Amino acid sequence: MIKAGIIGATGYAGGELVRLLLNHKDVEIKWYGSRSYIDKKYYEVYQNMFQLVDDKCMDDNMDALADQVDVIFTATPQGLCASLINEEILSKVKVIDLSADFRLKDVKVYEEWYKIEHKAPQYIDEAVYGLCEINREQVKKARIVANPGCYTTCSILTCYPLVKEGLIDPSTLIIDAKSGTSGAGRGAKIDNLFCEVNENMKAYGVATHRHTPEIEEQLGYAAGKQFCINFTPHLVPMNRGILATAYATLTKDVSYEEVKAVYDKYYKDEYFVRVLDKDVCPQTKWVEGSNFVDVNFKIDKRTNRIIMMGAIDNLVKGAAGQAVQNMNLLFGFEENEGLKLVPMFP
Amino acid sequence: MIKAGIIGATGYAGGELVRLLLNHKDVEIKWYGSRSYIDKKYYEVYQNMFQLVDDKCMDDNMDALADQVDVIFTATPQGLCASLINEEILSKVKVIDLSADFRLKDVKVYEEWYKIEHKAPQYIDEAVYGLCEINREQVKKARIVANPGCYTTCSILTCYPLVKEGLIDPSTLIIDAKSGTSGAGRGAKIDNLFCEVNENMKAYGVATHRHTPEIEEQLGYAAGKQFCINFTPHLVPMNRGILATAYATLTKDVSYEEVKAVYDKYYKDEYFVRVLDKDVCPQTKWVEGSNFVDVNFKIDKRTNRIIMMGAIDNLVKGAAGQAVQNMNLLFGFEENEGLKLVPMFP
Amino acid sequence: MIKAGIIGATGYAGGELVRLLLNHKDVEIKWYGSRSYIDKKYYEVYQNMFQLVDDKCMDDNMDALADQVDVIFTATPQGLCASLINEEILSKVKVIDLSADFRLKDVKVYEEWYKIEHKAPQYIDEAVYGLCEINREQVKKARIVANPGCYTTCSILTCYPLVKEGLIDPSTLIIDAKSGTSGAGRGAKIDNLFCEVNENMKAYGVATHRHTPEIEEQLGYAAGKQFCINFTPHLVPMNRGILATAYATLTKDVSYEEVKAVYDKYYKDEYFVRVLDKDVCPQTKWVEGSNFVDVNFKIDKRTNRIIMMGAIDNLVKGAAGQAVQNMNLLFGFEENEGLKLVPMFP
Amino acid sequence: MIKAGIIGATGYAGGELVRLLLNHKDVEIKWYGSRSYIDKKYYEVYQNMFQLVDDKCMDDNMDALADQVDVIFTATPQGLCASLINEEILSKVKVIDLSADFRLKDVKVYEEWYKIEHKAPQYIDEAVYGLCEINREQVKKARIVANPGCYTTCSILTCYPLVKEGLIDPSTLIIDAKSGTSGAGRGAKIDNLFCEVNENMKAYGVATHRHTPEIEEQLGYAAGKQFCINFTPHLVPMNRGILATAYATLTKDVSYEEVKAVYDKYYKDEYFVRVLDKDVCPQTKWVEGSNFVDVNFKIDKRTNRIIMMGAIDNLVKGAAGQAVQNMNLLFGFEENEGLKLVPMFP
Repeated sequence: MIKAGIIGATGYAGGELVRLLLNHKDVEIKWYGSRSYIDKKYYEVYQNMFQLVDDKCMDDNMDALADQVDVIFTATPQGLCASLINEEILSKVKVIDLSADFRLKDVKVYEEWYKIEHKAPQYIDEAVYGLCEINREQVKKARIVANPGCYTTCSILTCYPLVKEGLIDPSTLIIDAKSGTSGAGRGAKIDNLFCEVNENMKAYGVATHRHTPEIEEQLGYAAGKQFCINFTPHLVPMNRGILATAYATLTKDVSYEEVKAVYDKYYKDEYFVRVLDKDVCPQTKWVEGSNFVDVNFKIDKRTNRIIMMGAIDNLVKGAAGQAVQNMNLLFGFEENEGLKLVPMFP
Repeated sequence: MIKAGIIGATGYAGGELVRLLLNHKDVEIKWYGSRSYIDKKYYEVYQNMFQLVDDKCMDDNMDALADQVDVIFTATPQGLCASLINEEILSKVKVIDLSADFRLKDVKVYEEWYKIEHKAPQYIDEAVYGLCEINREQVKKARIVANPGCYTTCSILTCYPLVKEGLIDPSTLIIDAKSGTSGAGRGAKIDNLFCEVNENMKAYGVATHRHTPEIEEQLGYAAGKQFCINFTPHLVPMNRGILATAYATLTKDVSYEEVKAVYDKYYKDEYFVRVLDKDVCPQTKWVEGSNFVDVNFKIDKRTNRIIMMGAIDNLVKGAAGQAVQNMNLLFGFEENEGLKLVPMFP
Repeated sequence: MIKAGIIGATGYAGGELVRLLLNHKDVEIKWYGSRSYIDKKYYEVYQNMFQLVDDKCMDDNMDALADQVDVIFTATPQGLCASLINEEILSKVKVIDLSADFRLKDVKVYEEWYKIEHKAPQYIDEAVYGLCEINREQVKKARIVANPGCYTTCSILTCYPLVKEGLIDPSTLIIDAKSGTSGAGRGAKIDNLFCEVNENMKAYGVATHRHTPEIEEQLGYAAGKQFCINFTPHLVPMNRGILATAYATLTKDVSYEEVKAVYDKYYKDEYFVRVLDKDVCPQTKWVEGSNFVDVNFKIDKRTNRIIMMGAIDNLVKGAAGQAVQNMNLLFGFEENEGLKLVPMFP
Repeated sequence: MIKAGIIGATGYAGGELVRLLLNHKDVEIKWYGSRSYIDKKYYEVYQNMFQLVDDKCMDDNMDALADQVDVIFTATPQGLCASLINEEILSKVKVIDLSADFRLKDVKVYEEWYKIEHKAPQYIDEAVYGLCEINREQVKKARIVANPGCYTTCSILTCYPLVKEGLIDPSTLIIDAKSGTSGAGRGAKIDNLFCEVNENMKAYGVATHRHTPEIEEQLGYAAGKQFCINFTPHLVPMNRGILATAYATLTKDVSYEEVKAVYDKYYKDEYFVRVLDKDVCPQTKWVEGSNFVDVNFKIDKRTNRIIMMGAIDNLVKGAAGQAVQNMNLLFGFEENEGLKLVPMFP
């Protein structure tokens, strides 16, 4: 039984971490950090936790926390983890950062896209990008895991096998992604009010969304070269779920079976990645509440392009679930421990 | 490890049973009955089950099924269970009927409200009404458990302590209930299309809904006398959740603390019933995906009435979850085994 | 052609007023008051108005405004209209107040339920409660019209004929109302975020909601005596729409036809009140975007109660539409001018 | 005052036609055709029309109808209009076909994508593709107007100026479109049930959707050459609204101002097309209930692509509204008569 602390426990990703860790047989949560609700009972913030969690919210004191737990999750806005982390903390605990602070290897790219100064660039090289299906072995040995972004997790896993095998020209890659609203966080903003989101749909962050360089970097490793993509996120009136629809030009004439074999090569032993049957399009509802990624594809002979599709629950595989998966790797637990949740439908 | 068979596995309640039983350490599902999808892979009907269930759908053959399993769940329209059940089946397996066939003790009331002839009235007396918190001991010894209705579970548990203790005049009881749309089932009806339900709200079955006599009968036992109530269900644009708001005249002058003590008397040791803190109104989202019932109340001195409120997930505590809870009682498992799911928020 | 000014033009009710007045052949909007957005283009706040409104938002200066227009609408929080109004303003313009400041005739009741001091009690007597179907003649001569609350409009019109005719015992009246979320306003509050409201339902303000005394006062006039009711509002995941379900004990044995005749007596010539056919329950979607009130009822012989149901669009008949209807009466326009909008379905 | 008949009046597009025509000062509806509801009152099918429409539903008899009206709208599945139309009908009335029967000029393309035989190919050449902003003059003289598809209207108007001016390479065009569920029609299908659509999202018809050749044909005329595109529709949990996000490679280095000037060249005098301010992304809610098309774009220098975005209400500009706009052109009414509806928000 290990002990865990959460900084940022009252955001949606933090709340989901609590839900998942309560269901994990080897972890005990010792610290519910939330600067906004210090000394308030956690269940008063999330009444679904009534009679399940009796602790109070604590401050964001990572130094104090490091003495009490084995792993710290930071589910906070970018900048916070980098500003708090230090060698003493890392000597005592593992850190799984759900923010973007350690995802990009090039600090200039980080500072350009996020418009803030990086406070701990000395740890960027060491941090491991925690997309478990791709970096499993490095994660196991890490001190800092950079938990991937929600859109990026979905986008990368949807395209990875074809990029890696050179079946698509990565410079033609266009990813059109759609997300439920929990990805926008729990801040009190007019744009996220029910009446503004419900019965509505929009693109946002067009050509400027921060997950773009993260996707480019990771798929760049797979391709063995750098390239630029178009990534466009959209807001959709639902709580949970990301659907990525990706378009790319094929580099050669391939059949359905050949492409399927490539997906299977990478994913057939992956518990959390499900390559659907032919012509079945992923639906976000089929993965809701679970850590699954459902992917599939369709070849369009007319345009010589392939359309790749992927669906995740943004709060699970796109945030808290993947963080738990990373924790399982770090501590030698079964990789799907606490994550065998069956998707909820309807 | 016991074996279970489900008749009606492809309705929403059936699908929820599958979700819950897959998460139960002592049960294996051996039979996915679905007359509409015979020989089709179960996951092709519910793609959330892809790579989790590989079985095919089977016919509704209860006799054949009784030889293969320890417990049969019938999640079918009223009339079917009564038409299939017989002594030989009951000699081999326990039956948990999620339909209304064995909920009402008076066959005339059944036939009047449901407009069909009862095909197995000889088992009505024997069947146990499976509202576990109230009939726990009888359930343990039953052969047939009549799993309560969704509205009734929520309504009864919301009012039960005050009726039982005589704090309210039951003849003044008015229950205004609101339900998500999964309660309407998976039938292809225009009324249940997305565009008809979304951004819409209505009452239905006013003064004629079939859960009315079920509530009256059960609360009548608590009151020690018969009485009539008003029960009005409403359809609300959400998938899951029932909220019951109940109004009744108080029989004496009571304080918040006195009423709270009465609720605690009945529920403080009940894992699944959560009496919320003062002035916190139940919200359906706080129980979503779980077997919890959240209840609370407010005294209105001006009118000498009390307003009682309860919230459940209609597919869990209102159907499949309670069925699993009944199964746990029948087979001597921990009552909350497979049901310790943390509510999902948001 | 008259000129209108709106104070509070950027709230949801204010925005709806703009939508309706742009569609009104005899009115020109001259002033878009919004303290939060002074000097910002109105269409930048509500992009649906792009190329339809080119004006900028102005301050809440009612004195300056009174010189420029014929009618002022105040769609502001309670307290503001009372604090700004004065004799000079009233000598120049008509005021239609969408807030609660002049709805209650007893200033003590106002101060008790709203917890603020009334700044202009001298105008309370003079102000006319603008429920047009009931107070049409008084409205025509008013200087100040108190535009009724959303819940109250729906609740009163649903029950009025039966209270007026003495067919129900008003002291048994229980109103269970459900509202879409636009009624909660456009303030940036966590409780009204999409993810908190969507797939969720709750009661709120139980036994304490401020529309209670307003309903009691108006129905009290109809009954010819004072009484207390229970009124419970609920929040439902939709943008627009209020559904009221009201319960009361009948004072005598009546048939469907007799009750229908009573409704028809009061409403058969009312353009905006539609008494639906027998057994058709009102649905909020059937009035969406329009000024209609759909009502119906069901007699329950078993309990000797009647269930009355009413549906409105809370932003139209519950706010801006009724305000325009009042304006039409004040200025001698056709009562439904600008309000002949066909409800939008789906 | 002209007389109109609607065949297919009880589908969602038909219902929307009724809503719009009731609001049109120069048209009277004489025939509510609906094979499924013959002899039923129209308002019993759409209760929003209670007390607004008193007519009964009639059969789909186009010959009889032609004697009674000036214009016939066919809002029916593909194949029906082509099977009913004949010279005698066309000698008496104008026909506006909301189905796909006369949209594609190449009958082979029609039969290949729609998998049915065309029953009136002799009228294909004569029929005018009723995208008013592009084919205004031809529409005025037509006997048969092929009312464009919903996705196609949105897609074409979003991209048209840049294709026409050669600013983008049309063979690189990828259109990712998202639609509310009313586009799927009012048929009773499990896939369109509330619980299947709500909190869910999916692509469908990938690489095979029938609006693809329609977009290709029309944009092909603009480009002066044929080409293939990728078009992917998605289903989103909302009633109304289509959002198209289109990607294409720029043919030369252009500034924001240059592209804006191109959009303005084509649309600045178009009442229904609104080119939004810089960096404002279209939202479907801003056009809801109206005939507007909101468009905008963003240049991505990194990839040398442009992202074009457009939003419509699929039932208005994507179906019934555009049909009324075509009718206005055919009969010499003001083009926006009956269509000056202000979008409804929220």
